[in-house]
Amino acid sequence: MTDRAGSGRATASRAAPQGAVVLLSGGLDSSTMLAMARAAGHACTCLSFDYGQRHRIELEAAARVARALGAEEHRIVRLDPTAIGPSALTGGGIALGAGWSTAVPKARSLAAIGQGIPSTYVPARNTIFLAFALGLAEVLAARRIYIGVTAVDYSGYPDCRPEYIAAFQRLAALATKAGVEGSPVTIETPLIHLTKAEIIRAGHALGLAYALTHSCYDPTPGGDHCGACDACLLRRKGFAEANVADPTRYGA
Amino acid sequence: MTDRAGSGRATASRAAPQGAVVLLSGGLDSSTMLAMARAAGHACTCLSFDYGQRHRIELEAAARVARALGAEEHRIVRLDPTAIGPSALTGGGIALGAGWSTAVPKARSLAAIGQGIPSTYVPARNTIFLAFALGLAEVLAARRIYIGVTAVDYSGYPDCRPEYIAAFQRLAALATKAGVEGSPVTIETPLIHLTKAEIIRAGHALGLAYALTHSCYDPTPGGDHCGACDACLLRRKGFAEANVADPTRYGA
Repeated sequence: MTDRAGSGRATASRAAPQGAVVLLSGGLDSSTMLAMARAAGHACTCLSFDYGQRHRIELEAAARVARALGAEEHRIVRLDPTAIGPSALTGGGIALGAGWSTAVPKARSLAAIGQGIPSTYVPARNTIFLAFALGLAEVLAARRIYIGVTAVDYSGYPDCRPEYIAAFQRLAALATKAGVEGSPVTIETPLIHLTKAEIIRAGHALGLAYALTHSCYDPTPGGDHCGACDACLLRRKGFAEANVADPTRYGA
Repeated sequence: MTDRAGSGRATASRAAPQGAVVLLSGGLDSSTMLAMARAAGHACTCLSFDYGQRHRIELEAAARVARALGAEEHRIVRLDPTAIGPSALTGGGIALGAGWSTAVPKARSLAAIGQGIPSTYVPARNTIFLAFALGLAEVLAARRIYIGVTAVDYSGYPDCRPEYIAAFQRLAALATKAGVEGSPVTIETPLIHLTKAEIIRAGHALGLAYALTHSCYDPTPGGDHCGACDACLLRRKGFAEANVADPTRYGA
């Protein structure tokens, strides 16, 4: 599914823009990252995944953000939902029992977030996302893949750590025709050492309208943020610490 | 899509069989590898991909082989064909031009095969396949992923080389909950140092009926092997060198 973003195409005529594939969930982090990549002058192809996530509304947010920030294109790849999960984010997927929960944790203490791997962990998710991004980057001859992982204020996912990214970087150089021919893609992680507050301040300075973005794992039927899942707690805390007005509607 | 393989379930009652995810294309190599994994006593979940390949008939071969060899289960994951390619194997996929061909090369000299990266290269294909296998292995608590890459008689794909596999192994240890908890999956490549003839002799010794398998990139409408694509040339040569009767029907 492809949506050629209509606005902000002025940069398309700029001399030799450098192509980048941007993994865009529509959340606060990846949207800020897209703003950074655009500010750096890159022609961005945004890549989102429909993997049966509960919070599929984030895909609408991703489309809004891609359009607002003048991405070249926004692609949504549908992943076979029977091949993903189980996880609290998908509520199902591969059927299996012990050790896996499909309940979204609510109202945890901030101290508890980042301790251990939460039930919203989706097995191999970033590896699957990066693999598709790698194939797309190769075909588009894009030299950069942006992924919005952060090692600070993070949620305990193993595939968000710097050492994981470094390992994927090595893999990408060996995996592809471009790598063999001496021009491997680089994995860009501009958020990796930023706190949520720093991310928000950076995006705010770039003029990103955070009301376009969506973070909540378990939104209300009306699409508001629940205010109680880990993603909402970290979002709320981030705006408070950044001293930036939080435009988010937190429904009960 | 799941097909619980019906036959050969006698091993299922064996004490604590070790789980393995086996990437099974239905071709000669991966089918032999499955026979090896079964001979080693592993309970095998086979994983195939429907990615819009021209030779989708190989998925039927994979199902036949999984059943004949007593796999626990055979899963076929559908990949969004717009997210894969372009390649001579898919005839399309991501639309883009320069440097990519969608014609299957025919009747190349055997010396030419393995020189450079052929048009049947699918960008990041093994990375995508291994990423899904990694997620499945983690959910099933399987400790092994089998992939039938070979560095001998190989077709020039960068993502079949030993150094690529080693890089994925490192990635897998960092990517997953299982890895963080100290029991990462291992990537098993029993074919990596075998010639095609050695693979065929090994499978033959294990009683594998090669007539069940399918290698051709561009089969005839009736499902016969074309006899002229790289995969057919390597298959034919392998049987001849192994001195094993070739049961393959090479049409036209």
